[in-house]
Amino acid sequence: MDLDLSRGAAELTARLVDVESVSGSERPLADGIEAALRRLPHLTVHRDGNAVVARTGLGRAQRVVIAGHIDTVPVAANLPSRTQDGVLYGCGASDMKAGVAVQLRLAALVPEPNRDVTYVFYDCEEIEAERNGLLRLSRTSPELLAGDLAVLMEPTGGVVEGGCQGTLRAEIMARGKRAHSGRSWLGVNAIHRAGGILDVLRGYQAREPDVDGLAYHEGLNAVAISGGIAGNVIPDQCVVTVNYRFAPDRTVEQASEHVREVFAGWEVEVTDAAGGARPGLSAPPAASFTAAMGGTPRAKLGWTDVARFGVLGVPAVNYGPGDPELAHRADEHVAIAAITDCEARMLAWLR
Amino acid sequence: MDLDLSRGAAELTARLVDVESVSGSERPLADGIEAALRRLPHLTVHRDGNAVVARTGLGRAQRVVIAGHIDTVPVAANLPSRTQDGVLYGCGASDMKAGVAVQLRLAALVPEPNRDVTYVFYDCEEIEAERNGLLRLSRTSPELLAGDLAVLMEPTGGVVEGGCQGTLRAEIMARGKRAHSGRSWLGVNAIHRAGGILDVLRGYQAREPDVDGLAYHEGLNAVAISGGIAGNVIPDQCVVTVNYRFAPDRTVEQASEHVREVFAGWEVEVTDAAGGARPGLSAPPAASFTAAMGGTPRAKLGWTDVARFGVLGVPAVNYGPGDPELAHRADEHVAIAAITDCEARMLAWLR
Repeated sequence: MDLDLSRGAAELTARLVDVESVSGSERPLADGIEAALRRLPHLTVHRDGNAVVARTGLGRAQRVVIAGHIDTVPVAANLPSRTQDGVLYGCGASDMKAGVAVQLRLAALVPEPNRDVTYVFYDCEEIEAERNGLLRLSRTSPELLAGDLAVLMEPTGGVVEGGCQGTLRAEIMARGKRAHSGRSWLGVNAIHRAGGILDVLRGYQAREPDVDGLAYHEGLNAVAISGGIAGNVIPDQCVVTVNYRFAPDRTVEQASEHVREVFAGWEVEVTDAAGGARPGLSAPPAASFTAAMGGTPRAKLGWTDVARFGVLGVPAVNYGPGDPELAHRADEHVAIAAITDCEARMLAWLR
Repeated sequence: MDLDLSRGAAELTARLVDVESVSGSERPLADGIEAALRRLPHLTVHRDGNAVVARTGLGRAQRVVIAGHIDTVPVAANLPSRTQDGVLYGCGASDMKAGVAVQLRLAALVPEPNRDVTYVFYDCEEIEAERNGLLRLSRTSPELLAGDLAVLMEPTGGVVEGGCQGTLRAEIMARGKRAHSGRSWLGVNAIHRAGGILDVLRGYQAREPDVDGLAYHEGLNAVAISGGIAGNVIPDQCVVTVNYRFAPDRTVEQASEHVREVFAGWEVEVTDAAGGARPGLSAPPAASFTAAMGGTPRAKLGWTDVARFGVLGVPAVNYGPGDPELAHRADEHVAIAAITDCEARMLAWLR
């Protein structure tokens, strides 16, 4: 396959959509992207599995990382792409081949950007975290992801969404004493005791902290509860699984400590956690970017791959064309005007 | 497996305990019981699923039904059995393989009892009523359960226990609104709402009524709780399964109404119920048996199948070795002396 980067961003998006790249099957698309980038003499290109990294080396004072994943969720009878009334339809159109098209256009059209740029195209974002291409790069070649700002071109409706919140899951255990339910007073009902855990959750006041000028909104919620042995037994265990979504002013360790404090007196086991990322919007690179893109930035509340940049100490924002609510839907689509607007703003910022 | 009925009742109990027979998995034990009984020429043996019925046919003036269930609650790391200081430990030791061992010993040792005897061994007593083996027999072969008195050999501590409490299970539903847990305030957490159901249970005051001179003791308890869709989703449903144990002065209908009143404002679905039985110790056959076994009769608090004999018009009492308060506990056990004492009294009564 041959990717002609001189085509307009909308036409290029359609071309990218038509190269099927469901998670795990990105090789043909990665090959095409690598070949197109290697034709650009101002870029140094690295290949890692089905991820491609291309960097300028102009010795600028700042470096921005512009990243996007090239995989999609499974095709839902929505290929090849089609364009109607200024809207491009197809699997991955919004999430996130429109963003990838803008990345490729910037790489081709701005040989001497006013800040050094690292373009990252990676695989397996739509599946289990352990296979994520950005995670792999952060382990094998963290130096390739270094920078003063990272822009993840996930669909955000053309508004900068800063950072992301972290997520932590923990199991809170209530214990009791088993007994026959016909003589319940001889036991201690662990499910009844778990009412105390739910009391804590019901009374919990979630923080809404301001981080780097953006308003985050935490949450601490039960996402599962399980207890009971048999229909005639007073149960001796009841487990409540909670999910704490925490603002990026807290580390995973601080978040774990907070959950343990909230559930002081209960058995708490943290089962998995992933930190968030500060938006860094008050730092010069992000402030400049946000001003150039226009609109009012907002906090990213869901967990996204900007968190991987957070781990590397790189402030990160989400910004890209397309409506995030359309992601993963069979009627996924993106307005061509949104793609060209995004391209124009990014070009103006880098030139 | 081979059951040697010439062994002592305690040794036979240990053998029975070691054949795991959690409700629904009684086949190996039922096969062993059937084979042992078929070797006794004075008995006519019937097999119905995992239930076994063996009858003498001596033309005696009276017939007594001696019944016991062969299933147990789930194993709680309490198998195989062990004997220490004259006490036998293991799943089902008290509830009710000691009683089943006495039944088998009577069947083997008394070929010509002074009253005709029907020995009933049945399955699925510890789970939902609809699967109960004695219920199935009462529907398919009620003639096999006919008699002038039924003795259910559930653990009673060697004292005749009259009647039984009823049992009712209901599912109490808490509903919410599903949302991504990163924006939990857009949803309504059904597990948190279920805290209100647990509040009701925690504040519930159980009745302790006197019925026909015996003191009963009710209970209303959660026996299961379940909710949760995924680790990042605010759940829209949480179900609490409650078990109401009610004294025999209430019918199933009255018990259902009571549960609906207690959980007014919640969705309540009664999933299964079985009525209790008044003590009825004034009926002549039960009075005769009670006198022969000695001691002071008391109320049966757990639900037992005496209620089914009541429906068939057969007076019924509970009497067997083992402490009913130990049933369903991980440290369930029975004193060997209690087994041999029970065996001796029953042998004396039948010879």
